[in-house]
Amino acid sequence: MENLSISKPYLLNADDLTFNDINSIFALADYYIENYKPGVKFDDLKGLTVAMAFFENSTRTKLSFDLAAKRLSGDTLSFQSASSSLKKGESLIDTLRTIEAMGVQMYVIRHNCSGVPDFLQANTHGAIINAGDGKHEHPTQALLDSYTLRRHFGDVKGLKICIIGDILHSRVARSNITVLKTLGADVKLCTPGTLFPRRMNYWNIDIIEDLNDAIEWCDVALVLRLQRERMESGLLPTIREFSNYYGVNLEHFNKKPELVLLHPGPVNYGVELDYNVSLHPNVLIQTQVTHGVFTRMALLALIARNMRSNNLF
Amino acid sequence: MENLSISKPYLLNADDLTFNDINSIFALADYYIENYKPGVKFDDLKGLTVAMAFFENSTRTKLSFDLAAKRLSGDTLSFQSASSSLKKGESLIDTLRTIEAMGVQMYVIRHNCSGVPDFLQANTHGAIINAGDGKHEHPTQALLDSYTLRRHFGDVKGLKICIIGDILHSRVARSNITVLKTLGADVKLCTPGTLFPRRMNYWNIDIIEDLNDAIEWCDVALVLRLQRERMESGLLPTIREFSNYYGVNLEHFNKKPELVLLHPGPVNYGVELDYNVSLHPNVLIQTQVTHGVFTRMALLALIARNMRSNNLF
Amino acid sequence: MENLSISKPYLLNADDLTFNDINSIFALADYYIENYKPGVKFDDLKGLTVAMAFFENSTRTKLSFDLAAKRLSGDTLSFQSASSSLKKGESLIDTLRTIEAMGVQMYVIRHNCSGVPDFLQANTHGAIINAGDGKHEHPTQALLDSYTLRRHFGDVKGLKICIIGDILHSRVARSNITVLKTLGADVKLCTPGTLFPRRMNYWNIDIIEDLNDAIEWCDVALVLRLQRERMESGLLPTIREFSNYYGVNLEHFNKKPELVLLHPGPVNYGVELDYNVSLHPNVLIQTQVTHGVFTRMALLALIARNMRSNNLF
Repeated sequence: MENLSISKPYLLNADDLTFNDINSIFALADYYIENYKPGVKFDDLKGLTVAMAFFENSTRTKLSFDLAAKRLSGDTLSFQSASSSLKKGESLIDTLRTIEAMGVQMYVIRHNCSGVPDFLQANTHGAIINAGDGKHEHPTQALLDSYTLRRHFGDVKGLKICIIGDILHSRVARSNITVLKTLGADVKLCTPGTLFPRRMNYWNIDIIEDLNDAIEWCDVALVLRLQRERMESGLLPTIREFSNYYGVNLEHFNKKPELVLLHPGPVNYGVELDYNVSLHPNVLIQTQVTHGVFTRMALLALIARNMRSNNLF
Repeated sequence: MENLSISKPYLLNADDLTFNDINSIFALADYYIENYKPGVKFDDLKGLTVAMAFFENSTRTKLSFDLAAKRLSGDTLSFQSASSSLKKGESLIDTLRTIEAMGVQMYVIRHNCSGVPDFLQANTHGAIINAGDGKHEHPTQALLDSYTLRRHFGDVKGLKICIIGDILHSRVARSNITVLKTLGADVKLCTPGTLFPRRMNYWNIDIIEDLNDAIEWCDVALVLRLQRERMESGLLPTIREFSNYYGVNLEHFNKKPELVLLHPGPVNYGVELDYNVSLHPNVLIQTQVTHGVFTRMALLALIARNMRSNNLF
Repeated sequence: MENLSISKPYLLNADDLTFNDINSIFALADYYIENYKPGVKFDDLKGLTVAMAFFENSTRTKLSFDLAAKRLSGDTLSFQSASSSLKKGESLIDTLRTIEAMGVQMYVIRHNCSGVPDFLQANTHGAIINAGDGKHEHPTQALLDSYTLRRHFGDVKGLKICIIGDILHSRVARSNITVLKTLGADVKLCTPGTLFPRRMNYWNIDIIEDLNDAIEWCDVALVLRLQRERMESGLLPTIREFSNYYGVNLEHFNKKPELVLLHPGPVNYGVELDYNVSLHPNVLIQTQVTHGVFTRMALLALIARNMRSNNLF
C-alpha cells in the first residue's frame, strides 16, 4: 500500500482526480475493507485534526467523514454555523484562519454556495475536501459511486451508465460525469428538458428522452434525488408528472432484471424511485453508504500522505 | 462478572427485563462503582460504535449514556434532527439503515412518538435502547431508580413505593411500575383523577387519593415531574391547585423523617416538589443521576455481551 | 515544570490571578509550545472530564478550550442550551448538579449574564472557568493577550498599551486591564464618551480622547470589537462616525510602523479595523489564536494540579 499516492493535497472538484489518483483511492479502500473490523484503528491520520464544517444540513456525508477520520485515528472537531460566531457576522475566511491557527490540518466543507471550497483552498495551507458545494460538485459521492460499481462489476470501464433525473440542481451528477468519464465509462443522461442545463453540452453527453429507452440501453441507472427544497416553481409542471415520466418502478426491473441501480440518498419514495424497488437486491443504496466510509478513509489517508511528503505540516 | 448476562440483545420496554436480567445489571453496576475512578476505562464496548439519536431535547439522559459508552471504551456518534437530513424529509427507517451501513452496532433512541424503538428494532440487526419514547416507556430510568433503592435499602423486594403525580403523561411511571413489580415491590399510585389513565387498571394497582395517606403508607415516594410542556389544557384546574394537593413539601418530611424520595429530574420547584425539600438528605436525586451512568454502563455492556455471543456483529 | 502552581482551583475573574499565577501559566504555556507537535498528547487531564457549557454562540473560544483539553488527554462533553433540558425550564444550578453527579470535574462556562460563573462556583466542588460572562469578564482572553505580548516583547512590564474602542460593552477590556496592571504594564484607554463607563474610574485609568494621540503614545494598540449585537441604539451617532474617529487604518501604521496591534476577534472590518491593516505583520490576531490554545492548556493543567493537591477529586 506504500506506493499509492494522489497528485494533489486537497479535493475540490472531480477533475482534480487523475485516473491514477482514483485507482490509488480504490486500492486503498480495498485494503481497508479487507482489514477493518469493529475495534481496529489505522493510524494514517494519527496526530492530525480534521475540522468538519457543514454549513448545510447533512446526515450521511457528515457521519461518514467523521467515522472515516476516527477509524484512521484522526481527531475531529465539528463546526456548525448555528452555534458559531458566524452569527455575529464573522467572515468565512476569518473562521478558516482561526481554526487553522489552532492547529487544524484538514477541512471537510459543505456549503450551499458553489465555489466555497476553491475560495477557501486559496487561503489556507491546509487541505480542503469538498463535501458538496451548492449545485456545483460533490466529488466524494462520485468516488463512492464508482467504487461501488467497480466492486460490483470488477471494472467501470465500458459500463453503460445513465444518470436519471434532476441534472440541473445536481452536484452529484456533475461530479459523477467527470469521474465516470475519467474511468472510461459510457455515460448518458435521461432528464426533462427543463432540468437539463445547456452548459452541460460542454461534456457532449447524449440525452435519452424516454426513460424506457434509457433503462433498455444502460447497465446502471444512477437515479438522482429530486431536489425539492432547491427547486423554484416553474421548472416542472407537477411532482406527479415528473414521477410518471422519470420515476423508476418495479416494471422497469421486471423488464430488465439485471439492471443495477444507485441513488445518493435520501430517496424521495414515490417520486424518483418507488419504495418497493428500493428493496430489490440490485439496488445498491446501502452498499454505497458502506463504501462511502471506506472511500473517504482512503481519500483522507492519501491526502495526508501527500501533505506529509510535501512538508505541508 | 463473567457469568452475568441478559436475555435480549436490546431494551425496548421494561418488560423485556426478567428478574435475572435486572439483577445481572445491578451486579455489574456494583462492579463498575467499586472499580471506577477518574481515568479508568473498561473495554466492554471497545471497537463498537453507539449512535445517540435524540429527537427530543435532553440533558441528563443523553450525557449519561454518552459518558457510559465512553467509560466502556465505546465510540459514540451523536445525531440530532435539527442538523440532519431529516429536515430534507428523510424517513426515520432510512436514517437508521444509513447509520447501520456505516458500521454502527448500538442505537440509543429518544423520540416523542411512542413505539418508535420497537419499530426501529424490527428493522435493524443492531441493538436499540429506548431512552424514552413519547408517553410510553423509559426503561433505563426505571433501572436506575430501582438500583438507587437497592443501594439504599439493600433490597427492593417488599418496599412500599408510591408513585405520585402526573401518571397520565409519564413514561417514567409506566417503566417503573413494571420493573418494581418484577423486583417484588409493593406499588401504589397517588394521582388526580384526570391524570390517571384507565388502562392503568391493567396492572391492578391501588390508588391512594390523599397525598397525606400516601406518604403515611409508603417507604419511598417516587415523585413525577409534571409534564407542563406535554399537557393540553383542561386536565388540571390550575398548576397551583395541583401543587396544593399533590406537591411534596417539608411538612411531609417533618411528619415522616425516614421518608425516601426519588424524582427523575428536572424538578419543577414549587409544583410537584418544594425547593427546600430537595436539599433533604433522604431526597436521592443526585444519587439517581450518579447511579444512572453506572446502570447504563452495565446495560450497554450486557447487551454487547449478548450480541457477541449471538454473533450479531 | 513540577514547581509551577496557581493559587485557586478555578478562574472566575482576572483578579483571581496573582503575579505568580500568571507567570506560572506563561511558563507552562512556553513548555507546551516547545514540546507540542501534531500527534503529541500530554496527560495533565488524563481521567478528568471537562464540560463545555456555552450558552452564547462562540467559535474560537469553544474550539480553543476543546482542543486544549483534548491535547492534555482530558475527556470533554459539550453542552448547549438549544438541545438541552434548559428548554424544559430546568434551572442552571440543577443542570450543574446533574452534570457534576455524572462525574465531571471542570466546567468551562460562557453565559450572557454577568456573574454566572461566580454563582455556579459557589454551588460546586468542581472548577469553574469563566469563558466570558455578559459584559463582565473574559479572563482567558486577557491571559492569551498578555502572553502574546510577552512572547513578542520579552516582557509585559513597562509596555505602553492603549485599549481602543467599545469599553462599555467589553468583558475583554475589563479582564485585560486587570491582568496588564498585575504584570506592570502602563494602560490607557481611547474611547468615545458614550462608550466609557463611569465606574471605570475605579481603576484610575487615563483616557486619551484622540486616536492619533493614542497611537503616538502606545507600543501596543489593543483594539476591541464593536459589539454591534449588544448595542442598544443611542450610544453612537452612527457606525460610520465611530469608524471615522476610532477605526485603525493603514495611515496609523504608516505614521508608526513599529506599532503592534491585538484584536480578540472576530473583526468588524471597516469598523474598528480596516481589512488591509489586518494583513500587516505587526497585527498579531492569528498569533493570539494560536497562543490561546497553549495558554488554556496551561491554565487547565494548573487548575487540575491545584485540585489534585487539595483532594478536590
